[in-house]
Amino acid sequence: MNESTVTLQGWVGSEVRERDANGVPVASFRLACTPRYLKEGTWTDGPTSWFTINAWRGLAHNVVESVHKGDAVFVEGRIRADTWQRDGLPDSTTLVVDARVLGHDLNRGVCSFVRPVRGTVTEEQAAEPTRGPEQPVQEVA
Amino acid sequence: MNESTVTLQGWVGSEVRERDANGVPVASFRLACTPRYLKEGTWTDGPTSWFTINAWRGLAHNVVESVHKGDAVFVEGRIRADTWQRDGLPDSTTLVVDARVLGHDLNRGVCSFVRPVRGTVTEEQAAEPTRGPEQPVQEVA
Amino acid sequence: MNESTVTLQGWVGSEVRERDANGVPVASFRLACTPRYLKEGTWTDGPTSWFTINAWRGLAHNVVESVHKGDAVFVEGRIRADTWQRDGLPDSTTLVVDARVLGHDLNRGVCSFVRPVRGTVTEEQAAEPTRGPEQPVQEVA
Amino acid sequence: MNESTVTLQGWVGSEVRERDANGVPVASFRLACTPRYLKEGTWTDGPTSWFTINAWRGLAHNVVESVHKGDAVFVEGRIRADTWQRDGLPDSTTLVVDARVLGHDLNRGVCSFVRPVRGTVTEEQAAEPTRGPEQPVQEVA
Repeated sequence: MNESTVTLQGWVGSEVRERDANGVPVASFRLACTPRYLKEGTWTDGPTSWFTINAWRGLAHNVVESVHKGDAVFVEGRIRADTWQRDGLPDSTTLVVDARVLGHDLNRGVCSFVRPVRGTVTEEQAAEPTRGPEQPVQEVA
Repeated sequence: MNESTVTLQGWVGSEVRERDANGVPVASFRLACTPRYLKEGTWTDGPTSWFTINAWRGLAHNVVESVHKGDAVFVEGRIRADTWQRDGLPDSTTLVVDARVLGHDLNRGVCSFVRPVRGTVTEEQAAEPTRGPEQPVQEVA
Repeated sequence: MNESTVTLQGWVGSEVRERDANGVPVASFRLACTPRYLKEGTWTDGPTSWFTINAWRGLAHNVVESVHKGDAVFVEGRIRADTWQRDGLPDSTTLVVDARVLGHDLNRGVCSFVRPVRGTVTEEQAAEPTRGPEQPVQEVA
Repeated sequence: MNESTVTLQGWVGSEVRERDANGVPVASFRLACTPRYLKEGTWTDGPTSWFTINAWRGLAHNVVESVHKGDAVFVEGRIRADTWQRDGLPDSTTLVVDARVLGHDLNRGVCSFVRPVRGTVTEEQAAEPTRGPEQPVQEVA
């Protein structure tokens, strides 16, 4: 199984970019996660880690409409390290998370939520959970 | 440490109720979680589990302003089973989650996010992460 | 999707019980989780929560051979509240976790690990990840 | 708080290395995580991601005694991306996880567990949960 699940809180550090992956809509952005530590009685920032967040299908559409640079969000999903090899250079690694759940972090602000009106989602889409190419499908044995 | 951490997706099944716990603001609501299964090729609902969600301090204020009955939300936090004993009756158990992170689920709708304006949060509050009575504090050894 | 995922650390509070659920082997035990808090400079125990842990298929066999009353274990899986209604009595609720990952907690002891010898696992079983009736199946879109 | 929590299942890809970080014992190893996908009815391996796992204090000792190259383990902890900048070369990134919980994966083998005998752990150590420099401390408000 070798599942690698991550839960992140952070700040959106780029605009959301839309693309089409073999007919599947994907929304992507960069997320900055800066842990805070209590060091000798004072809260201080640790080093920032950057992640590339991908949202697929129905989640992609809602992310494009809802998420903007500077927003505080949480993400839960599967993490992988994409490593790129180039001639004569050291490998370059990007942390990629395929989001299963994504939303604004109410620790950091307030939010007004609107469910999609009838007609924007087909019955089929509503019946099947939103998922990306690597999202789990549940099946009863 | 015996940590019991839970990640939930569900629907808010009650209005949000505010109270004061020894001077600490708490917002509470009931969350319904209904898993879906692929059974013989068809998506079907499993039985619904109900949880009591508590949000503390700054998170409590933002939950009161943002979360309403019928919203789709995501919660991450610590879970415990509160069991009540009554004379001559079987024990009654409530599942309680003290939220660390909470927000709307963008799989289920769209959201507009507003960060608090200057003046609504003191420097001290901003410096210290929002947490409840049972939320973790990070300390460098 | 309404996923409810839990991560638990605790002590095994019963012997492991084996049963057969429509031809699928299941191993079950009770897990006690007692959070610890730093209260006025002293570590104290919070109230204990009890969970019923189910392990399915190949994981069931290894749990039967490896896990004993009093062991410190870690469990990750899907949680649900099973509520039983009885005439004239209040509902009774049991917290049930179908384990996806389970093992001993090396914070609490040492462990020697043995992988199954060839022949005890068929190629088919090895190819397909161990899962219960409610465990996720991954599929590429 | 900007917490970045990860849950990993994988194979230990190096021997465990012990070191001393300002008087605190640390055990480290490399973990290989290879997701499996159901693609057109066949289970296939995705690309492998590598993580550096650190265990601190009491957990470090038990990891040194228990974990070996080739073992199947699970890890829960905090993740960060350590990026190294070098003159004239692209940045190099390592994924580092400070483990909060760590143990063998009973999906992949069997295990015999031994709790430490009296005398190997002082009362003070037993009272305070094992944690690294970045592990959470729980405090009641």
